[in-house]
Amino acid sequence: MMKKAISDLKAQGKAAKAASHSLAFISTDIKNKALNNIADDLLSRKDEILKANKKDIAGAKASGINEAMLERLLLNGSRLEGMARDVRAVAALPDPVGEVFDMLTLPNGLLRGRKRVPLGVIGTIYESRPNVTVDISVLCLKSGNAVILRGGKEALNSNKALAGVIRDAAARAGLPEGAVQFIDNAERALVDHFLKMNDVIDLLIPRGGAQLIDFVARNAAMPVVTGGIGVCHTYVDKSADIAKAVAIVFNAKVQRPTVCNALDTVLVHSAIAAKFLPKMARELGKANVEMRCDAKAKSILGEKSGLKVKAASRSDWGQEFLALIAAVKVVASLDEALEHMEQYGSGHSEAIVTEDYDSAMRFLNEVDAACVYVNASTRFTDGGQFGLGAEVGISTQKMHARGPMGLKELTTYKWIIFGNGQVRP
Amino acid sequence: MMKKAISDLKAQGKAAKAASHSLAFISTDIKNKALNNIADDLLSRKDEILKANKKDIAGAKASGINEAMLERLLLNGSRLEGMARDVRAVAALPDPVGEVFDMLTLPNGLLRGRKRVPLGVIGTIYESRPNVTVDISVLCLKSGNAVILRGGKEALNSNKALAGVIRDAAARAGLPEGAVQFIDNAERALVDHFLKMNDVIDLLIPRGGAQLIDFVARNAAMPVVTGGIGVCHTYVDKSADIAKAVAIVFNAKVQRPTVCNALDTVLVHSAIAAKFLPKMARELGKANVEMRCDAKAKSILGEKSGLKVKAASRSDWGQEFLALIAAVKVVASLDEALEHMEQYGSGHSEAIVTEDYDSAMRFLNEVDAACVYVNASTRFTDGGQFGLGAEVGISTQKMHARGPMGLKELTTYKWIIFGNGQVRP
Repeated sequence: MMKKAISDLKAQGKAAKAASHSLAFISTDIKNKALNNIADDLLSRKDEILKANKKDIAGAKASGINEAMLERLLLNGSRLEGMARDVRAVAALPDPVGEVFDMLTLPNGLLRGRKRVPLGVIGTIYESRPNVTVDISVLCLKSGNAVILRGGKEALNSNKALAGVIRDAAARAGLPEGAVQFIDNAERALVDHFLKMNDVIDLLIPRGGAQLIDFVARNAAMPVVTGGIGVCHTYVDKSADIAKAVAIVFNAKVQRPTVCNALDTVLVHSAIAAKFLPKMARELGKANVEMRCDAKAKSILGEKSGLKVKAASRSDWGQEFLALIAAVKVVASLDEALEHMEQYGSGHSEAIVTEDYDSAMRFLNEVDAACVYVNASTRFTDGGQFGLGAEVGISTQKMHARGPMGLKELTTYKWIIFGNGQVRP
Repeated sequence: MMKKAISDLKAQGKAAKAASHSLAFISTDIKNKALNNIADDLLSRKDEILKANKKDIAGAKASGINEAMLERLLLNGSRLEGMARDVRAVAALPDPVGEVFDMLTLPNGLLRGRKRVPLGVIGTIYESRPNVTVDISVLCLKSGNAVILRGGKEALNSNKALAGVIRDAAARAGLPEGAVQFIDNAERALVDHFLKMNDVIDLLIPRGGAQLIDFVARNAAMPVVTGGIGVCHTYVDKSADIAKAVAIVFNAKVQRPTVCNALDTVLVHSAIAAKFLPKMARELGKANVEMRCDAKAKSILGEKSGLKVKAASRSDWGQEFLALIAAVKVVASLDEALEHMEQYGSGHSEAIVTEDYDSAMRFLNEVDAACVYVNASTRFTDGGQFGLGAEVGISTQKMHARGPMGLKELTTYKWIIFGNGQVRP
């Protein structure tokens, strides 16, 4: 049984690799046609998709899955419409492939430059949201990559139906067969084999919780986009505009607390703490945010009634809460804030609120993170918000791509050299 | 003993990491000053360096090392002068750090862009050439990175002396202490620990033979620049200009046969083989090149006297010869040539010789390699030749950087965002 599954998986890898060769130089028109076909078919084959999803929902309920996961698993008409809209939006984005840059005629007459090309085959491992099947496939196809999909067990029927829709729609537009591979065997042990297929997979994108991402990063033989873990700080400088600071902290913490770019820790300069913290706490209190405070912050906030003010424990610094909880610390200087971020940050998104030019510039220069903000909410760390059109994830690594990864970040380049008989002296 | 060595190594890692933080935003002037100091001191401290090198040479002779390795190990006045010249050339290159690109004002008024920053700490493991100590250190410092050096056992004294010179010269210019770390313990087991220091090392560059590179790539916990293995093809199309084709093949094979961008296999279209191969063979014969031919090529070349024409065995396709040996194969079409390259190439450098526009364009589009040439020798794959000024290596991976890696390829970017109180709606 497992032997068969492994040989099937290998065959899928080979097919994806083969497809990637022609996908690499297929025209933008055909790729866009494929994406628009996918959007059409998500709607025209709605019944089939929702029927498959019902099976998953029933199975999930029977296995006693929690409400939040059920909610993530659920598809319906309006969700499919939203997915179709997103697909059309990707179709409308510029094609990253084919751009030629750094083109230069060398003294010997050789004309050389870099041409943007797809990575090849992208693998993805994801958890219960079936929309990831569409999301990642569409970004891969638009950037000229073949894709191998490995979704969660609970969403197997939904994912299979969606992958079938994508495959048919893409083939109808003229994309090579094999460009979209879906692993429909839910055996856990198969993942180990998948992670070692570095002969066919050029990049692996895990989508899901920190545990999944960490497992993939540690066990994959190919490069992995690690990220999605955001321990994000907002530092309120002594020169901060207090109204801006309160609004930014509130937005970063409350607007969507369950995502990686949400605020985890507020650092505040001691010179402004007594003025700022009560205003911040009043605002955060409206959203019922729990504040885990160091001794100084607690002594300032301690007496306010009706607020969830607690003493911070050591483990609160550097924790990604993904909930309506914020750690709060008073610091003596910008330097102390920078040191704290360096020690506890995850290199995702960090912000300063300040009206002081020098503090702003120092912060931008000295913070080592994917996204460094002055006077704005860290919630903007997102491919869509950054104007990249879409994103496959947020990288907290330094190699290849950092921060939101859009279509361009799914490509590489090759050097092309036009000669006229040149030889090296 | 080993315990002490490991804790020393960890301390070196920490020191490099600490230094990398201030190195990241030190001025170009100071970095260039450091490089010019290094060049000065390589000459003013010549006696000390050559004395250390004498010890290594004596040790190497005593251990019965071969001539080629002794030659690589040897330092003398003129070699030091050459090294100093190369260091000054790197000082004269533009600083890659600090460039801001993709800067854009978003509809909400946020100004966002990417700022080029150093990777952080670069580790390097290399074999007997002591010049690598200088070479890599200088490229790392210029690009704002700290570096940890681990050279070969045979060159320990030379490397230690060179690293000392670099460290002193850099500190005199005002670079942070700790920016250059040299591992002076030659224990083989220490390498295993080095390869797992992904908490401090952002990128590892192995320099040496295929075995070393392969070992490092398979065992390192951090990203590695793999490359340096070049199975390079030159395809002579049916429309090739024969004189150009002969000159290009000769240059690619003979000009320096021991390097990765040298030719390994000639593919020739059957329609031109009878005219081209004898001319090619006569030329290659002058350099005493051994030709390992498929049946068709052998039947054309077989009777020529005084030439080293042999029958190719299966293992000759896809072999990196690093010697005056070329595999030769007659193909029926451009398609067959492309398939052969895809099957046997290492994704390094591939060339076509053709006067046909369509063949040239198809070749440029369809070959999946770091460097793809029309009518030029693959020997040009080199940072210096490409006008990058210098190179730390040639990458055959697709992530981060492909082909020659110069200063820019030792950097990453961070997103910087200038706001004015923006929050996400």
